[in-house]
Amino acid sequence: MTTIRPVFYVSDGTGITAETIGHSLLTQFAGFSFVTDRMSFIDDPEKATEACARIRAAGERYQVRPIVVNSCVDQGLSVILAGSGALMLDVFAPFIETLEAELSSPRVSRVGQAHGMVDFETYHRRINAMNFALSHDDGIAVNYDDADVILVAVSRAGKTPTCIYLALHYGVSAANYPLTDEDLDSERLPPRLRNYRRKLFGLTIDPERLQQIRQERRPNSRYASAETCRKEVAIAERMFQMERIPTLSTTHTSIEEISSKVLATLGLRREMY
Amino acid sequence: MTTIRPVFYVSDGTGITAETIGHSLLTQFAGFSFVTDRMSFIDDPEKATEACARIRAAGERYQVRPIVVNSCVDQGLSVILAGSGALMLDVFAPFIETLEAELSSPRVSRVGQAHGMVDFETYHRRINAMNFALSHDDGIAVNYDDADVILVAVSRAGKTPTCIYLALHYGVSAANYPLTDEDLDSERLPPRLRNYRRKLFGLTIDPERLQQIRQERRPNSRYASAETCRKEVAIAERMFQMERIPTLSTTHTSIEEISSKVLATLGLRREMY
Repeated sequence: MTTIRPVFYVSDGTGITAETIGHSLLTQFAGFSFVTDRMSFIDDPEKATEACARIRAAGERYQVRPIVVNSCVDQGLSVILAGSGALMLDVFAPFIETLEAELSSPRVSRVGQAHGMVDFETYHRRINAMNFALSHDDGIAVNYDDADVILVAVSRAGKTPTCIYLALHYGVSAANYPLTDEDLDSERLPPRLRNYRRKLFGLTIDPERLQQIRQERRPNSRYASAETCRKEVAIAERMFQMERIPTLSTTHTSIEEISSKVLATLGLRREMY
Repeated sequence: MTTIRPVFYVSDGTGITAETIGHSLLTQFAGFSFVTDRMSFIDDPEKATEACARIRAAGERYQVRPIVVNSCVDQGLSVILAGSGALMLDVFAPFIETLEAELSSPRVSRVGQAHGMVDFETYHRRINAMNFALSHDDGIAVNYDDADVILVAVSRAGKTPTCIYLALHYGVSAANYPLTDEDLDSERLPPRLRNYRRKLFGLTIDPERLQQIRQERRPNSRYASAETCRKEVAIAERMFQMERIPTLSTTHTSIEEISSKVLATLGLRREMY
């Protein structure tokens, strides 16, 4: 029997930082069933008192000490939360003093700096990158001059979600080029891409997995047949290799991992949002 | 003069956890110019040695001790990185022992658990949510039965990026409904939405800001005129209020904040990816 353990991500902001680090920590423990709950915008003593009561109640229900991963910048709120009796993990506390000493500068306690709209221009660039990804998604009538990266792949190999992730989190203008039957017949780099070699990144995928995905989309079509999938993937991979386009298989790779690899491979240095 | 300080996010995985917590920490110090660099997939001693050399070089170039925010699960790699002389902030170290004691269980050191494709089914749901958002973006021919949330707003108020964020990070099926001229004329909740009251969330925006955004899209159109923007926003806000639809202004709110508020307000409990 796995033990159930309630975990709360509490923040005076969105809670994204608390949940990111908390989730990373929990994945390092096996055999537990963590029941997680996010409490965001806990930004005054009243809300903290309410949160405290809910945390305590969870401990009573499951008969086990809850875990609180806390990113409240206001120390007073953390004190209130600690009244719940939970194990308190403060995601900033262990680093702030070290940084204050290193930088010879006190911390400025402002809430919502990490995931708020702090820098309007940067934010605007990011939204524009997103619109770029959405409007450059079909490979038709696309001007690749403005693209930072062009993902090349057969249909349904993972181009669109990756483009959107790159735009949303790195402000990268990511276009994509779906390989057509004609491209695959020629087995050469499509003429429209030849001027953009340094921006190209190829995605590939297991033919069996591709078949599953296409089957959901257009059941029993030629498009979704095992033969079509096998053939398209084989030609695309050969083309990537011949044309020396960096390539990654998306079969067992998450959008986050693909995006990180694309940035690292093409040497695109962008801060993450 | 602001001091330049090189900061490295180093990880044997994507580096997302290290950069998220590192960025949150840096936003709490004012007056510094942090030059950040991400080193992802540093997963063997050779790569760690290379990374160490680059970190040391940055320290020599800027004549100041670099800061390393490190999320390598393998302790051996951290030791190599520390050879750079940088200030080492290990994002997991302060919490792991506490958690090991609390859970009476040793940590399982596996790389890439947090942002990798660990649970295939969950990942698939997330990609499906993304496809849902992309295909339910124009409000036309949309079946709202399958939506978890329906964002309602005038054109260009921030619906699309929010829907995509909700899908990508929370696996939420988010549809949107752009208020048409006809809807605005009637000043009532559009008939198509009346069966879905509990899923509705209204977005609003400063008319001046809306005008800027629309002006970029269709310069000098009636659509982008100050009068149109003012009128549309006023009617939409009145409608949200009369129909008691929870509402948020996107003018100074980031996608992350809007998404967190939507989830909290509609009581949608989803783990974050």
